Amino acid sequence: MSPPKRKRTEDYVLYYWGGIPGRGEYVRLALEYAGIPYTERHDKLLETLHSPAKVGHPPHFAPPALQLPSGRILSQTANILNHIAPRCGLAGEGGNKLNTHGEDARETVRALDEEEIEKAEEERSHVNQLVMTALDFQDETHNVHHPIASSLYYEDQKEEALRAAKVFRETRIPQFLEYFESVLTSNPATAKHPDNAHAQTYLVGSRTTTADLVLFHVIDGLSFQFPKRMAKLKASKKYDNVFKLHERVQEEKGIKEYIASGKRLKFSMGIFRHYEELDGED
Amino acid sequence: MSPPKRKRTEDYVLYYWGGIPGRGEYVRLALEYAGIPYTERHDKLLETLHSPAKVGHPPHFAPPALQLPSGRILSQTANILNHIAPRCGLAGEGGNKLNTHGEDARETVRALDEEEIEKAEEERSHVNQLVMTALDFQDETHNVHHPIASSLYYEDQKEEALRAAKVFRETRIPQFLEYFESVLTSNPATAKHPDNAHAQTYLVGSRTTTADLVLFHVIDGLSFQFPKRMAKLKASKKYDNVFKLHERVQEEKGIKEYIASGKRLKFSMGIFRHYEELDGED
Repeated sequence: MSPPKRKRTEDYVLYYWGGIPGRGEYVRLALEYAGIPYTERHDKLLETLHSPAKVGHPPHFAPPALQLPSGRILSQTANILNHIAPRCGLAGEGGNKLNTHGEDARETVRALDEEEIEKAEEERSHVNQLVMTALDFQDETHNVHHPIASSLYYEDQKEEALRAAKVFRETRIPQFLEYFESVLTSNPATAKHPDNAHAQTYLVGSRTTTADLVLFHVIDGLSFQFPKRMAKLKASKKYDNVFKLHERVQEEKGIKEYIASGKRLKFSMGIFRHYEELDGED
Repeated sequence: MSPPKRKRTEDYVLYYWGGIPGRGEYVRLALEYAGIPYTERHDKLLETLHSPAKVGHPPHFAPPALQLPSGRILSQTANILNHIAPRCGLAGEGGNKLNTHGEDARETVRALDEEEIEKAEEERSHVNQLVMTALDFQDETHNVHHPIASSLYYEDQKEEALRAAKVFRETRIPQFLEYFESVLTSNPATAKHPDNAHAQTYLVGSRTTTADLVLFHVIDGLSFQFPKRMAKLKASKKYDNVFKLHERVQEEKGIKEYIASGKRLKFSMGIFRHYEELDGED
């Protein structure tokens, strides 16, 4: 067996807008959690990503995009996360065994029998499914302040945003929170540890996955965008495990250091935006 | 080697609403293409999918969901497609080698070397990325007639829909078509066959993938929702390969028979909806 290759900062290059956390933040959180170094590239973003001559085939519709050690580039947030989750140790206990990056990891995959590999793939897909649902939640949050078109100013669709915000606050936020609470409380892998304060704070299995990281960031963003509504929902005690997951993740190794480093960008005028008139307790 | 297990209709169960193609159609197209039999379940849909007691962990936020031969259930359209693509022969030439379903397939995976498996995984992820972008196009199409909230009637958000439709027709449809045209024309795998009428009608590699199937259906849906606008864009000749892909896919083995069978549901009041007032040449 050859010695493991040392990961270099230039092995992973994140293409995303500078200055906002945006959808790039989900990729950053995964890499930070795993301790995988990366560089960022913000300049001539669309010009680069749209050009097959610059990025290879296929070109990309929108950032984030991640250049892998192979030199090839992937886009679509959930797709990037699903691709790198096993090598980041974020695809669940079974899903992590599907890491094929590196010779030692490949040996582990080869040793899996039929049933183990089937379960591993399904666990990875369950993680991906939850990532996608949390990102749907995020997309709806974005549509609240841009209901007519992303390309128009908020000020030009403010009346419509007021209408959208009311429905979103009243019905959609509770629906999504209730769903994730149900995922957390029905997870059989954590049911055995009723005394543990973190017992029901894992969406899949009993270790952090990309799904936990994405939900953590979405809860962060919603608390920024709708502070009154989220405070009210937190106080209701109905979604305790979702909020406990949020607390747990910010203390996780890798994430804690990332937050403490000051590198993590603050929310401002990106996907999650705070317009006071769109918030409210109900 | 044991003889290959015969696939039974009850091995794959699609959970989706009855009566509309909806997001379930993308899963149907993949299974029909691959000749994999399946049954459908429409009754007590959300009641079932939301219940961990009925569907196991994790429960699902929304259909479509697909029950696999293992008995476990996956949701999120792109996630289902990414999971089943290799076993359907729809993950690209390399991606298809990642099929781990069945002993023969497992042997193929085991035989891949480091570089082959890396390329295979990246091809599968490129297919998934394009699936996700085509589904984003679909989601924006849906938001045009429901800009404020999915839960409200169209009639209660018709004014907003008129505004959203104008921007969508004028800028977003061309942007997405231009993107897919660029993916098709820059595909190096088909560049070698300039005389073939189907030369530039494959998004990844030189065989049909889930990305082709999804784009086919989205073009179908857009042509139903915006017949005037799509006719104008087709006549512009700028997106010839996208429209040729659409023609090619409907003649593909599996898809042709599915369309001829009359089983394929017609568009009506689902994701793609025709409201004459939202259409227009420009």
